[in-house]
Amino acid sequence: MDKIVECVPNFSEGRRARVVDEIVNAMKLRGVKILDREMDANHHRSVITLAGDPGAVEEAVFRGIATAARVIDLDAHCGEHPRIGATDVVPFVPIRGMTMDACVAIAQRLGARVARELDLPVYLYERAATRPERRDLASIRRGEYETLQREIATNPEREPDFGPKKIGKAGAVVIGARPFLIAYNVNLATSDVQIAKDIARVVRERGGGLPGVKALGFELKDRGIVQVSMNLTDFNVTGILKAFETVRAEAAQRGVAVLESEIVGLVPLEALTQLAARALQLPGLNVSQVVEMKLFGE
Amino acid sequence: MDKIVECVPNFSEGRRARVVDEIVNAMKLRGVKILDREMDANHHRSVITLAGDPGAVEEAVFRGIATAARVIDLDAHCGEHPRIGATDVVPFVPIRGMTMDACVAIAQRLGARVARELDLPVYLYERAATRPERRDLASIRRGEYETLQREIATNPEREPDFGPKKIGKAGAVVIGARPFLIAYNVNLATSDVQIAKDIARVVRERGGGLPGVKALGFELKDRGIVQVSMNLTDFNVTGILKAFETVRAEAAQRGVAVLESEIVGLVPLEALTQLAARALQLPGLNVSQVVEMKLFGE
Repeated sequence: MDKIVECVPNFSEGRRARVVDEIVNAMKLRGVKILDREMDANHHRSVITLAGDPGAVEEAVFRGIATAARVIDLDAHCGEHPRIGATDVVPFVPIRGMTMDACVAIAQRLGARVARELDLPVYLYERAATRPERRDLASIRRGEYETLQREIATNPEREPDFGPKKIGKAGAVVIGARPFLIAYNVNLATSDVQIAKDIARVVRERGGGLPGVKALGFELKDRGIVQVSMNLTDFNVTGILKAFETVRAEAAQRGVAVLESEIVGLVPLEALTQLAARALQLPGLNVSQVVEMKLFGE
Repeated sequence: MDKIVECVPNFSEGRRARVVDEIVNAMKLRGVKILDREMDANHHRSVITLAGDPGAVEEAVFRGIATAARVIDLDAHCGEHPRIGATDVVPFVPIRGMTMDACVAIAQRLGARVARELDLPVYLYERAATRPERRDLASIRRGEYETLQREIATNPEREPDFGPKKIGKAGAVVIGARPFLIAYNVNLATSDVQIAKDIARVVRERGGGLPGVKALGFELKDRGIVQVSMNLTDFNVTGILKAFETVRAEAAQRGVAVLESEIVGLVPLEALTQLAARALQLPGLNVSQVVEMKLFGE
């Protein structure tokens, strides 16, 4: 498999396991692997991670959206997490052999099909956005399902990219493309949480720091230490090693040592070969040189 | 597939492609992937790399040995590369979820079976060796097939680990286990080859340097630069980053900068997660956190 796309659809059902089963089962196709499945009862929301052949993943996600539209009723839905649809948000993520543009094309094609075959309003977001303000999911989801119901027909700002200017009990679907997000934490040998907060402020993009990096400072009370917790939203722009080195340098300036770092959840192989490239002045390492890729990935 | 073993059998046929085809085809079993196939006419030798499920690889290699014994006649074999058998040497290499001891056990079991079912003398080498001098392949292969023919029955030093103290036209087979070998080069911004040779002498194990590292200094004439060319014979003992950092520090002491480094051929994913662990003070990274492993490797 030379091309791999990941998709992380969020469905507005986090309590009835059989409903989530039905949606997940609809997405089980040849060429698709379900990597993860998280249900949250408080949020009343499920997050499914699937990946595989781009065409198969696109088809699988369409079937998931169709199933969710049939089995979820937003008029009866109430949870902590904001939402506008039974299938609330559908990001496509390039993993290997895929450009961002190819993922944007999938989002556009799937969006058009969801509108045409399921008669649902579709908004394109992040890298697939057609208006600058729609890059931000929160702005599309403003006021949630209940507000969108009132505004979709009359407010031009809320006109969907595809589908009807009206909304039923399945709500609307937000589809888009974004880079892989790496959750990366660096733990510091101090109990002074202000140091972690200060470093987070310096390293994050919003504070003029590293592009593509979100960061917060936390206290890890049980260990008596602090953590700079980062989201690397595009490791091709700022990779893991660059983030680590920057935090380490900022900590050193404040007389604090790094205890260790950790990657939470998954990391694409390309992020590791990119790390090797930087650490070893080794520009030429290719994922196809990894034994396991020779074995499984081709 | 949670356990992966690699095997790199060397066969004494490097000219007739159809003969090599027959051997390779005999090794094509479910659970086994042929990763590479190299024929060398001057050496009159083929090197096949296969990997996969340990049991399947063991069975495949047995079939390869049986086929080679049938189709290769060492009495009619003449090439540059030293050899004592139709199947000359068979190293098993742990790739994932396998200890070295598990690979030694495969070598022992396969050796006993080759002796029993094919009536061939078998020598165990490297980590599977039963005598210290047999860790070294060259000592087992001393004088090659022609000398072994004369000595096997009478010289106790040449008594095989398994099988008859006599040798037919298929010769003897050397079977063993060793760690994965990473071929790793660091290129230096100087045309003075003596600097590369000096650094190689300092970093290699034989010179009291890094354990598990073999190193030579070369000139890359067409580029006007020099190279420290290393074999990392056990990346769990000395990893890629340690080797790089040591060469870079030695070069810096001599006023020379590193231009870049390169991995030649394959590298196991564990060598990259180990590199990340060292570069990022990240002890907890597991190969199962790599997206591609979630997709293919489980």
